[in-house]
Amino acid sequence: MADIPARTEIGVTTGPIRGSRKVHIATKSGSGIRVAMREIDLEPSSGEPSIRVYDTSGPYTDPAAQIDIMAGLLPLRRDWIMARGDVEAYDARALKPEDNGQLGPDRSGGVRPFPNVIKQPLRAKAGANVSQMHYARKGIITPEMEYVAERENLGRERLASYVRDGESFGASIPDYVTPEFVRNEIARGRAIIPNNINHPESEPMAIGRNFLVKINANIGNSAVASNVASEVDKMVWSIRWGADTVMDLSTGRNIHDTREWIIRNAPVPIGTVPIYQALEKVGGVAEDLTWEIFRDTLIEQAEQGVDYFTIHAGVRLGYIPMAAKRVTGIVSRGGSIMAKWCLAHHKESFLYDHFDDITEIMKAYDIAYSLGDGLRPGSIADANDEAQFSELYTLGELTHRAWKSDVQVMIEGPGHVPMHKIKENMEKQLEVCGEAPFYTLGPLTTDIAPGYDHITSGIGAAQIGWYGTAMLCYVTPKEHLGLPDRDDVKVGVVTYKLAAHAADLAKGHPAAQVRDNALSKARFEFRWRDQFNLSLDPETAEQYHDQTLPAEGAKTAHFCSMCGPKFCSMQISQEVRDFASKQNQGVEGFIATGPTGAETAAASKAAALKGMEEMSRVFKETGSELYMGMGDREHD
Amino acid sequence: MADIPARTEIGVTTGPIRGSRKVHIATKSGSGIRVAMREIDLEPSSGEPSIRVYDTSGPYTDPAAQIDIMAGLLPLRRDWIMARGDVEAYDARALKPEDNGQLGPDRSGGVRPFPNVIKQPLRAKAGANVSQMHYARKGIITPEMEYVAERENLGRERLASYVRDGESFGASIPDYVTPEFVRNEIARGRAIIPNNINHPESEPMAIGRNFLVKINANIGNSAVASNVASEVDKMVWSIRWGADTVMDLSTGRNIHDTREWIIRNAPVPIGTVPIYQALEKVGGVAEDLTWEIFRDTLIEQAEQGVDYFTIHAGVRLGYIPMAAKRVTGIVSRGGSIMAKWCLAHHKESFLYDHFDDITEIMKAYDIAYSLGDGLRPGSIADANDEAQFSELYTLGELTHRAWKSDVQVMIEGPGHVPMHKIKENMEKQLEVCGEAPFYTLGPLTTDIAPGYDHITSGIGAAQIGWYGTAMLCYVTPKEHLGLPDRDDVKVGVVTYKLAAHAADLAKGHPAAQVRDNALSKARFEFRWRDQFNLSLDPETAEQYHDQTLPAEGAKTAHFCSMCGPKFCSMQISQEVRDFASKQNQGVEGFIATGPTGAETAAASKAAALKGMEEMSRVFKETGSELYMGMGDREHD
Repeated sequence: MADIPARTEIGVTTGPIRGSRKVHIATKSGSGIRVAMREIDLEPSSGEPSIRVYDTSGPYTDPAAQIDIMAGLLPLRRDWIMARGDVEAYDARALKPEDNGQLGPDRSGGVRPFPNVIKQPLRAKAGANVSQMHYARKGIITPEMEYVAERENLGRERLASYVRDGESFGASIPDYVTPEFVRNEIARGRAIIPNNINHPESEPMAIGRNFLVKINANIGNSAVASNVASEVDKMVWSIRWGADTVMDLSTGRNIHDTREWIIRNAPVPIGTVPIYQALEKVGGVAEDLTWEIFRDTLIEQAEQGVDYFTIHAGVRLGYIPMAAKRVTGIVSRGGSIMAKWCLAHHKESFLYDHFDDITEIMKAYDIAYSLGDGLRPGSIADANDEAQFSELYTLGELTHRAWKSDVQVMIEGPGHVPMHKIKENMEKQLEVCGEAPFYTLGPLTTDIAPGYDHITSGIGAAQIGWYGTAMLCYVTPKEHLGLPDRDDVKVGVVTYKLAAHAADLAKGHPAAQVRDNALSKARFEFRWRDQFNLSLDPETAEQYHDQTLPAEGAKTAHFCSMCGPKFCSMQISQEVRDFASKQNQGVEGFIATGPTGAETAAASKAAALKGMEEMSRVFKETGSELYMGMGDREHD
Repeated sequence: MADIPARTEIGVTTGPIRGSRKVHIATKSGSGIRVAMREIDLEPSSGEPSIRVYDTSGPYTDPAAQIDIMAGLLPLRRDWIMARGDVEAYDARALKPEDNGQLGPDRSGGVRPFPNVIKQPLRAKAGANVSQMHYARKGIITPEMEYVAERENLGRERLASYVRDGESFGASIPDYVTPEFVRNEIARGRAIIPNNINHPESEPMAIGRNFLVKINANIGNSAVASNVASEVDKMVWSIRWGADTVMDLSTGRNIHDTREWIIRNAPVPIGTVPIYQALEKVGGVAEDLTWEIFRDTLIEQAEQGVDYFTIHAGVRLGYIPMAAKRVTGIVSRGGSIMAKWCLAHHKESFLYDHFDDITEIMKAYDIAYSLGDGLRPGSIADANDEAQFSELYTLGELTHRAWKSDVQVMIEGPGHVPMHKIKENMEKQLEVCGEAPFYTLGPLTTDIAPGYDHITSGIGAAQIGWYGTAMLCYVTPKEHLGLPDRDDVKVGVVTYKLAAHAADLAKGHPAAQVRDNALSKARFEFRWRDQFNLSLDPETAEQYHDQTLPAEGAKTAHFCSMCGPKFCSMQISQEVRDFASKQNQGVEGFIATGPTGAETAAASKAAALKGMEEMSRVFKETGSELYMGMGDREHD
């Protein structure tokens, strides 16, 4: 049931999200594919239609689903994968003790392995390429693309009267998403659908500028904290609140087993940073890393079903000195590990040198590249510096190399960036990386608020999402301080959901504003339950309300404790509307009948209209000169 | 002592902010004026200088100060006020029961009045004008202006080597703030120093685009919740965490007595919305409001020392119909009250009609106008509509009228505004209101996250602060749901401090980045205590760290529980730096000596440089065409 996770055994939170009803919508093609979403029913007396919202929570919030963590989720996509006829099953790579960090004779500290590991994973037949980009470029619309199109539409065809309004900085957001549109976006590399053929449990989703802005939640243990049960619980908890993908960033022991439990039970794409596990295999000594160990780790993770790999192939030998003069050096774990290796060996990064070999693996499983920003700035002082943009230039080069093999790519981004430097990041990335999806960590817009970095970064994330970033990697209140617990995970996810939605609104994404309008209307009409149910976190909204007005009657009260019954502006607004209509007129007509009303009203309105016309004229004439002319008059 | 407020008697939080030391800095003129700030000392082994930060917390955090809530604070400014020779003492207006909401024979529910009420308040002598704007326009630099100049500088003259970097959209932020600069900004109306001659306890501060971005915290009871002790405690608590001004928005009983306790103990300007108390005096029946009752309330509050009044004189009769078609009508309490009155009487707003009479009162006490945005949008759907901008146009008209009498003015602003509509608000306000300071409520960038509206609005506040807004009115997690408690107040304040600071950084405010750099350097060097002490909320930062690593040794550990000892990128970065220098060379030289190092490094570096030059060329040539050209190719 909701909110009772077990810590001693692996238990997860199930049950519907408050106020929501799981639905499965058939795609238009009649192919039988059904897309999971949820609908929020509003009070019947309101006459308002149900609101359909995008749903990442998977079967866990479906009362009709049977959840068995030991068995994993149903392999939703398996038939689609097999039907393409281009994969073969083979004997899995043998599991080694070092895969779980057990390097010496001491085998203690292990965890229970997932009981239903697939012994014969899939890979592409010889010579085949199973990436969605490959299919897209051959003109094929896959079931995954069809699923994505329906998922992104959210029933927007019901909004025929909606007038689009936004500033998308040149994006191409369609009124209505067709499977063909999805295919085209993937073919040109402007979007990806990350889904390894060995992760058939995942519900397909797209990451791209012309789709809804997505968010990622990070989980994973460290040598110092957490365990398998907590990590599986955090994964399910994070998608309940809206995480579109989840990265398992474990760096402690039992990395392989932990990941298996997570992937088998994840309805969302799972990403990893393979260099972490590789480093564990060499006992934490970066200099002892080799291409062979890394390659073996890629295969190991590919067979389990990881959907995207962060690869720090842009941390090149020549760039490392550029980081020496920084305030916070190299803040990326993977980036710092590769830097150490390069310096120790006086050689170019083996990730860069073997990039095409990595690509061969990616295309055999349909794993997407998340080209890592190992040289991202970790402080305001380091933002947009030479090290950062040198790496970006290389990521652009690698994007085009990967695309030659039809392998899907997204690009990771910063970091810590003050607001005035954010747009340059977006512009450079679009140009250099051929519009490949951008996937940023925030950025944090100031360094001075550890404990609140979900907010310092939410500010930057909303902006860079507006400018065109396709996925935002969340930051929790624990950033810079420690490993997040499940409460931190929830706060981070909800913060990033609202930032992504603010970006969708600003971009003019069709149907984004439907939810805001529904909630505001519920607020205005004192439908408190509807307001809570439409919000991103219904439980917290209700809890906050009930702190001062817990009685049941308060849920229909025409006030709350902020202002009380006499001062509620919503209530007074209602009275104003009612009062005027009682006179059997519209408000305007009502005003006109008063003794001085007509003249006064007309005069003030005319003055305002005139004033606004004048304002418009001035703006058109002066444009951006508005600021320039005024700015220098310091000594008037 | 810290954090033990008493609820049954009036008690407040005292004691230094962790890691900070109160200082009083003499102004340059040698006049003897000393400005309160605080300094954060860093670990001696670091060799780093102390960091001076702006301090709103008043004597409460000064261990040398004697705090006696019954007596109030010392009248810091009294000598300056008397020395100007333009004020006279007179017998205060008699307190009436209705001032405390006691309208009938039932006198119960009252609170203990402040024991040291001043029986003879000050006002301007006949024909005099005591506003800071009046002095400024006569070329006089007052002690208040001198105080402000020193306060805003924060010792920035020690940063001679600092290179300014920002985008201020045409603001005029000086390298160094002189008292003359302050005088000029006030004379031209671009900044205000809100300080009523009857509030001599206040430490002078400036609100204006060319100064540090300020924040306001709202406190006050309602008919449903809270009491005097809680409100005084919240005021002291809010300024501890950084509130620059505080508004007392009480709407319940005991408004007069509550306000007296607050003002006598407030080292920051206090604002109110007088219409609230006026409405209480007529038993909550808006139609029964009269100009006389309102005027009497203004005098009552002026004598107590309120520093700025929110006056909703822009809610004109002719604009009210425009709000009828909105999703959320009129969300401002004052705005909805005035709308109700106007419709009931079929007459123009008495605030508008009597504006010049109000101005006469303002100039006799030096109370600043906060021209209210009674028609601000309360939902995304209503943003930037006709009602909102009609009112803004009128606020512009009223600004110029007030300025004719040398009365200080700031302009209130929205509300709920999606990101792409924010800039228009700033541009219109600057143009129409003659660059009078803008004071916005957020804006909230989406409606869908009640419970998280400090964040939805923090996103908008940071942006509009960057564009030029001078003060940001905070929003707490309880927005739309109930009255905030002290925890909510703290979260709201810290959120708005970080948003204001992010704006200062983006504007290129000199010395803003000093704190970010100091904190990041401490982070990089594992000076955990310094990192906490430099942050906006040292206690929370330390608490979060200690949740997983509580041992004392962890405070100097070269890792935290996020990554553990092997994976800490900060630690590895340090090792990279040390490793290279052990070879007795810079990192660059070190790389060059390797077998293939020199060639590889040079080649990659040359490639990157070439690539970046190419990027720059493309940007210069195509400019904003970068997006346009790419955006329409939907069917390539």
